[in-house]
This record gives sequence, structure tokens and C-alpha cells, in this order.
Amino acid sequence: MIFRQLFEPSSSTYTYLVACQEQGIAALIDPVLETMERDLEIIHQLGLKLTYTIDTHIHADHLTSATKLKALTKSKIVYPKQAELPCADMQIEEGKVFRIGSMELHPLFTPGHTDHHYAYLFDQGSQQMVFTGDALLIDACGRTDFQSGDAGMLFDSIHEKLFSLPGETLVYPAHDYAGHHVTSIAQEKARNPRLGNDIPKEEFVTIMNSLDLPYPIKIDFAVPGNEACGICPPNVPDYLRSPCEVHDQG
Amino acid sequence: MIFRQLFEPSSSTYTYLVACQEQGIAALIDPVLETMERDLEIIHQLGLKLTYTIDTHIHADHLTSATKLKALTKSKIVYPKQAELPCADMQIEEGKVFRIGSMELHPLFTPGHTDHHYAYLFDQGSQQMVFTGDALLIDACGRTDFQSGDAGMLFDSIHEKLFSLPGETLVYPAHDYAGHHVTSIAQEKARNPRLGNDIPKEEFVTIMNSLDLPYPIKIDFAVPGNEACGICPPNVPDYLRSPCEVHDQG
Repeated sequence: MIFRQLFEPSSSTYTYLVACQEQGIAALIDPVLETMERDLEIIHQLGLKLTYTIDTHIHADHLTSATKLKALTKSKIVYPKQAELPCADMQIEEGKVFRIGSMELHPLFTPGHTDHHYAYLFDQGSQQMVFTGDALLIDACGRTDFQSGDAGMLFDSIHEKLFSLPGETLVYPAHDYAGHHVTSIAQEKARNPRLGNDIPKEEFVTIMNSLDLPYPIKIDFAVPGNEACGICPPNVPDYLRSPCEVHDQG
Repeated sequence: MIFRQLFEPSSSTYTYLVACQEQGIAALIDPVLETMERDLEIIHQLGLKLTYTIDTHIHADHLTSATKLKALTKSKIVYPKQAELPCADMQIEEGKVFRIGSMELHPLFTPGHTDHHYAYLFDQGSQQMVFTGDALLIDACGRTDFQSGDAGMLFDSIHEKLFSLPGETLVYPAHDYAGHHVTSIAQEKARNPRLGNDIPKEEFVTIMNSLDLPYPIKIDFAVPGNEACGICPPNVPDYLRSPCEVHDQG
């Protein structure tokens, strides 16, 4: 298995490259439009073929590069079944293993940040690694105050699907805003300020409902754009136009 | 490969169990006297044979269980060559691969916390993992104000031997005092308050020489005890006697 953790700074997003070295088959988890060329260059340098783009959910803070990458590389667009996107080529569903060459990805349905959110679990031998999207972050979790979010549902998803994994399981989130790169299930159970140390559900829901976060700056173009698997929607505000314009010319 | 991260709370030490599943051969890195029975029980439950105990250096904050484990399981005591311990059965040396069954441990000479300190690198496929002992900690590093410590030497060790590894390399330290379990080379290069963000050597040395840390509570019995590979020395103070007494009866 080849693994790379790639960062997109404007939305603080982690894109993950996972690849089966034997068969030369690569997948990108949560690829971002702004860093598409960089991601392609890395895949090229590694001698891999991009075969799948896999999103954890319909993002509200950046545009996926899924459609652009499909046009350039014939990669297949993979989305959670519950997202019900006609633009997706393949659907992810809990209980059905998704294969990337000889590697097995185990989809974990983890709604709460959105109602269709998935985490993706890989067994890489000594330790499992789980890509937690916007469900579980390092010392934090995804917000639950827009786009079908539900704090109680997120609490249940994290406890039932993630905190039940072995403590050594490596956690790779879709975002970090403080330079963290990796955590483990044991670490989040011990010290996550919203979820750790056996915080009860009612307290978590109170914390989440009291966050009073600002309205997401990109949501009004990112959600419709991602519902089309990464097509820049019309009427993009001027201050967000740059990645759309660059790639619409291509 | 089997991997377990085990914690000893009184000294906030992480002991690591690494084992070759095929051959049933296990090693403990930095095992602690207080948690010896727990570690043996886990090894027994996994159906493994403890073959090696490997210390990263002569510790000043806890007693190694190396000698007691040797008496109970015939495990071999492994120490850095530069520690020059007559009680060691085998010596670790940079440039010589140490094999645990089919697994390869690559010793990295990383003096600075002590003058004989080693880190241990494993390649587990998708990512490397490095056991950094008391050289590089999560958001911190080992102190350099006693027992042959040298801040400038530690800076060089970390930059030349650890920060030169791929960013995704997982970092497992010998201690954490705040519930962290794992980090990566990229994370420490980005946000370690003493070493990250390209802090120059002079600034690091100034930081380390200004820490004004308390005298280590166990040092006067732990260092001579560990120089004998974990024999409780005479004249152990009453408040530190408990693990010695329990195990001296056994």
C-alpha cells in the first residue's frame, strides 16, 4: 500500500492518496479542486493510475475535484449511497467492501455532520487506519449546525462506529486547523474535549448546540457544486472564483 | 506485525509491543517494572513468546523490567552499544539491522537526551513507524539537563535522523504527559513548539537551557538500577519501594 497525506491550505482539507502498489491503482479520498494539479503530479511521479475519487460526504467548505479528475484521467466518481448523487459512477455502502486493487476499504456509515456521511476503514496489517472525514477530527469533531447535521446522531456514529475500533487505530481526518496530522482512537477517547473521557451524549449535544459558529463562507456555492460532483455552479462570488476559472479553461 | 501501545501511568511511559505474527516472536520496547505483569499477560493472550526487551536508553524516571522478564521468560536484554552495559545480552548499533522474526528494526543513533540514546525505525508497508524514546516527544522533546544530556546534540539528532524521514512516518514516543498517543514527522516539523517551523539551533538550545525543570524524583535509584538492566538498587527511598518489593519477592 502507498499512502500520502496531502493538505489544501485555503480550506485546511486533508486529501488522502491510497494506492495498491502491486497493481498501480490509486484512489484519492476527498480531493480538492485547488490542489488537483499537485495531486495528479504526485500520482504521476509514483507511476500510478488514478482509478477512483472517493468523497466522505458532500462538502460545504470546498469543491471536490472529482469531475475534473474524471475528465482528465477517466477516474470513477465514488460517493456514499445515501448522498443519492446522479453524477456518481459508483456508490459506497456499509457492509459492502470496496476494493482498490488488492486493498479493502470498509465503509462505515457515520451520519451527524451530514445525514449521508461515511468514514473509510483500511486494515494495513499492524494497525488499522480510518479516514474519518468530518465526523471525528483531532481534538474536535465536525460541526452539526447546517446541511442535515444532527449532534445526537454524530455522537452515536462516533461511539458506535469509531470509538469501538481498537485503540491503536490511526485516525486521519478530513480537516485540521492547528497543524495536527494524525491521532488514534485511544487518543481521542482520552482527550477529545467534546467527546473524550466518557462525556455523556447530553453534554456533547449541549456543547455542539452552543458553538455559535460563523456561517460557512463557501457553502452557498460549494454544496450545489458538490451535488454535481464538483462542477462550479453559476453565480460564484468574485472572491471564490479563482479555482473555477482556472479549471473551467482546462 | 502485531503492535500494541501500552501505558504506565506513574511515569507516563509508553511501552511498545511489536511482534512478528508468523513466527510468534515478540519484543517489548521500554518495558516498565510496574506494568510487567500486564505486559506479560497481553503477550500470553496473543499467543506470543517474549524474545527481546529493547531499551531506547538508560532511563532516569522508571526501572526497566528487562532483567525480571529475562528471569521469567528467558528474553534477551537488548541495549544500545554506546550504553556499554555488561548486563545486556545483545547490543544495538546504527547500520546493523535488528531482526524480530521477519521484521526489521533499523536503529537510529540519536544522542542528546543521553549520550547513548537510540530511536528505532520499522517499515510496516504503507508507512514507517519510529519509536523515538525520549528524543522526540509529541509537541515536545526529552530534557537535556542531566545524565549526559546536550541540547545542541539533541537538535542535530532530531534534524538529521528523524526530521529527514518521510512526513507520514508515524512517531511513537516513550512518554506523553497530556494524553497524546501518536504524531507524525510532518506534524512535529509543523507544530512542535521547541523544534517546529524551522526554529534555529541557537533558539532551541536557549529554550532547553531555560526550562528550569525540577530534579527528577526517581533518578538517584533509577539510573543505577537501569545500569544493572533493572535490578532494584539498595537504599531505595520508601516512597519508591513498592514495585521493587513486589517483584523482589517473585
